[in-house]
Amino acid sequence: MRTLGSVAIVGAGQVGTMVGSALLEAGPALGITSVALYDADPQAAAASVALGGGDLVLPDPASVLQAQVVVLAIPVTEILAWLEEFGPRLREGGALLDTGSSKAAVVAAMARFVPEGVHAIGGHPMAGNEASGPSAAIPGALSEALFVLSPCRPDREALEIATALVAACGARPLVVEAPDHDRLLARTSHLPHLVASALAAVAAEVGDDLPLTQALAGTGFRSTTRLAASDSKMVAAFVSANRRQVEAALREFRRELDRLELALESGPGALEEVLGAGRVGHALVLGRA
Amino acid sequence: MRTLGSVAIVGAGQVGTMVGSALLEAGPALGITSVALYDADPQAAAASVALGGGDLVLPDPASVLQAQVVVLAIPVTEILAWLEEFGPRLREGGALLDTGSSKAAVVAAMARFVPEGVHAIGGHPMAGNEASGPSAAIPGALSEALFVLSPCRPDREALEIATALVAACGARPLVVEAPDHDRLLARTSHLPHLVASALAAVAAEVGDDLPLTQALAGTGFRSTTRLAASDSKMVAAFVSANRRQVEAALREFRRELDRLELALESGPGALEEVLGAGRVGHALVLGRA
Repeated sequence: MRTLGSVAIVGAGQVGTMVGSALLEAGPALGITSVALYDADPQAAAASVALGGGDLVLPDPASVLQAQVVVLAIPVTEILAWLEEFGPRLREGGALLDTGSSKAAVVAAMARFVPEGVHAIGGHPMAGNEASGPSAAIPGALSEALFVLSPCRPDREALEIATALVAACGARPLVVEAPDHDRLLARTSHLPHLVASALAAVAAEVGDDLPLTQALAGTGFRSTTRLAASDSKMVAAFVSANRRQVEAALREFRRELDRLELALESGPGALEEVLGAGRVGHALVLGRA
Repeated sequence: MRTLGSVAIVGAGQVGTMVGSALLEAGPALGITSVALYDADPQAAAASVALGGGDLVLPDPASVLQAQVVVLAIPVTEILAWLEEFGPRLREGGALLDTGSSKAAVVAAMARFVPEGVHAIGGHPMAGNEASGPSAAIPGALSEALFVLSPCRPDREALEIATALVAACGARPLVVEAPDHDRLLARTSHLPHLVASALAAVAAEVGDDLPLTQALAGTGFRSTTRLAASDSKMVAAFVSANRRQVEAALREFRRELDRLELALESGPGALEEVLGAGRVGHALVLGRA
């Protein structure tokens, strides 16, 4: 396996801290010489280092460019801005990986702004939860997690370096073309984020009934709306970057709601049938059918 | 505390088995002399008894009427049918409690079909999950769980008996008028059930992309769609029984979706704002704000 050298992570939140911790731990064996963190909020970077997310805090955004491997762990909108500003200045022969939840916009920006001599590739670690900030990093969450890799152009070395990084995190790499990733994530993640938020808003808009609503909100509500507690900026960024696919998923979702509502008008038997189809679909997607 | 005597539970599924187990355990101290189970599926009743859900299986539905306390743990549609058929034949001085997730239709049927001399009251234990059948009973799940009691008419003794039953289960009684229960549960539970089903259906309808969808469906998808695995007949029954409120909740939910979609068109900043409001609402409902 190739040696990775110095790593710099941009963004010391939940994902940046988890990736940094994993790389720092696996570091010596893989030739990782240092894991530096940069965050627009220096306190977040310091907190992350204190939690083992890296071994030093970088003072300014440009200092990231000195590292052999750069990992972007910031909201997708900021990744796009970063690529435009710093992409052209990345060091020749270095590597670049991001961790955003939308991939097509990211790899397009990589292809546009990152010189061919830099080994850039899109990435999406499928780990973490609705919490945010360095203290929300979950030790070991990357272990055995799926880590999607979406190439931005033919570059075998980019894929090799990224695969080594993913392996260093203990995660499982899976190469998925960006458009495929985005089409499916719109349905398995981005739409659920919007739906969780809408459900939470409906339950909160009960006026004087709020205390009783709080008492009656049970595990089903918690589960269905958990994603509504996610960092709004981060979610807005990846959903907006994947807007066309999310809009298509919303149209499909509205059709399913129509179907349920029509069945509800027809009676319990009709509704049971539509819910039964949803139950079968659920089992299918989770590989239980 | 009053002594409860013989108990018969109609329905040996997850809820019936959990209630039966709790009553059997607390039984001697509370004067419960036996916990008999009836289920249209005799094998389910036998399985429940084997799991400690009761101490005997009743052979036919009418034998339930011999018990001093009858607990209905069947889908709401079946509760309504049971009340019409057996309600008038309940023994004078006995007690009746149900466990359905919609209350207005149930207490209306109790008021109509159960003689005044029987101490009937609506109930809804807020425990259990998406699994079904006696083997899905979760030991201890009723302990500290909220158990809603919805009176069907002024009857202090019905409330006392039900409170004793709830206490025997280790749960916390909360008196909520049926219309209030149904209005709020439509938003915290019934709508989320429909939404989870619709989300699962969207994700399952990806054709050839199913294997990749399976790989990419993460914890967010699992959480948001967990309720889609619920027993379709049971969900169809309580949603249909609460149709008007569920339809109102669906209208509110569609308005929230419209708001999100409009914001998505405007850009990440606008979307972040609407998602931020959903996040605040989520924290409010869960008592974290």
